[in-house]
Amino acid sequence: MSYVLYYSPGAASMAVHWMLIEAGIPFEARLIDIDTGAQHDPEYRRLNPAGRVPTLIVDGVPRHESAALLMLLAERHPTAGLAPAPGSPDRAEWFEWMVFFANTLLPAMRDWFYADSDGDPAGAQAVRALAERRIEEAWERLGATLADGRAFLVGGRLSTADFLALMLMRWTRNMPRKATSRENLMPYIIRVRALPSFIELNAREGLSDWSNPVGQA
Amino acid sequence: MSYVLYYSPGAASMAVHWMLIEAGIPFEARLIDIDTGAQHDPEYRRLNPAGRVPTLIVDGVPRHESAALLMLLAERHPTAGLAPAPGSPDRAEWFEWMVFFANTLLPAMRDWFYADSDGDPAGAQAVRALAERRIEEAWERLGATLADGRAFLVGGRLSTADFLALMLMRWTRNMPRKATSRENLMPYIIRVRALPSFIELNAREGLSDWSNPVGQA
Repeated sequence: MSYVLYYSPGAASMAVHWMLIEAGIPFEARLIDIDTGAQHDPEYRRLNPAGRVPTLIVDGVPRHESAALLMLLAERHPTAGLAPAPGSPDRAEWFEWMVFFANTLLPAMRDWFYADSDGDPAGAQAVRALAERRIEEAWERLGATLADGRAFLVGGRLSTADFLALMLMRWTRNMPRKATSRENLMPYIIRVRALPSFIELNAREGLSDWSNPVGQA
Repeated sequence: MSYVLYYSPGAASMAVHWMLIEAGIPFEARLIDIDTGAQHDPEYRRLNPAGRVPTLIVDGVPRHESAALLMLLAERHPTAGLAPAPGSPDRAEWFEWMVFFANTLLPAMRDWFYADSDGDPAGAQAVRALAERRIEEAWERLGATLADGRAFLVGGRLSTADFLALMLMRWTRNMPRKATSRENLMPYIIRVRALPSFIELNAREGLSDWSNPVGQA
């Protein structure tokens, strides 16, 4: 099994990059810096016609969609234990969170950040207002779930759902209401950000703006 | 394995209802008519706090998100053959289409139909305009994929991705640009609508407004 990950620091590729590091899966990382427009390069567009990251080349074939790639990797590398095993009691909950992030928070975040360029700039304010409402509702739901003190989202152990959750929470760091401003999310955020694989991920992507304060774990 | 499906005719429950019928899985169907507001009933809200359909009671536990339910059912009933087997070459493509429908078409359709009630009615026109653009782009992509004449979306055989695709296409029937107005989608639509399980699904949900004309198959 061979993997090449095309990523941009802090972008939707982050969850997949994290998983590859956490699971100890050998892969090659190639930088596509979306801040410089590298995703529009014709050579990259052949791998990803939509011009987004991530692209994961799986055994020579380009694949897309971060949530799909996480599910695929969990299945191909079951010993990493990053998803409840098929047939286990937590499996349905894991599928549900993965799809919830994919169809609620990810598109709302896209609206928040790209309303101007995806659509008519004149309508961007209305699109962002609805996006913000949905993002708030999603954090309410996540906060209510985590209120029972669970260490991780599903089944008491780290899974791909946590990678998506943290990546999405990180994206709020410059929004009016940050995930880190929510008391019922903070214990979870502190716990998952303390993972060595998250620290390593940030180092590899050159990020330092959403880490635990030194000494906090 | 026991299943109870809460559904509303033609709603997002339709893909799950279809799968249960196609796979020959025993289940009990319970009507939650969203046209009469039955999804807001406190008793139903206990099963589905967001007040949406579907809810699938899986071995006594309420589960949600149509795409997640389809993936779960495919895994629990592998002999139905409604997803490429884990480890098979088509598996990555199947995950990708499932997530694409979940994070692109499903949220855009929600924007199209619910912009007024999900958000500020004053901004609904802008939200719907962006939704329409994204829906158009998604059909372009689907049309380009089907242009090779494939019978079904993934791996040459019917899968859960086709259930989602047809349900979403049906939702365009009263939109300005219908899926059925696209020449490159029509052979696929005609083929999949001709399946006995789709005809049975429409009969059970009391639907007759998006079927193949008599004699067309």
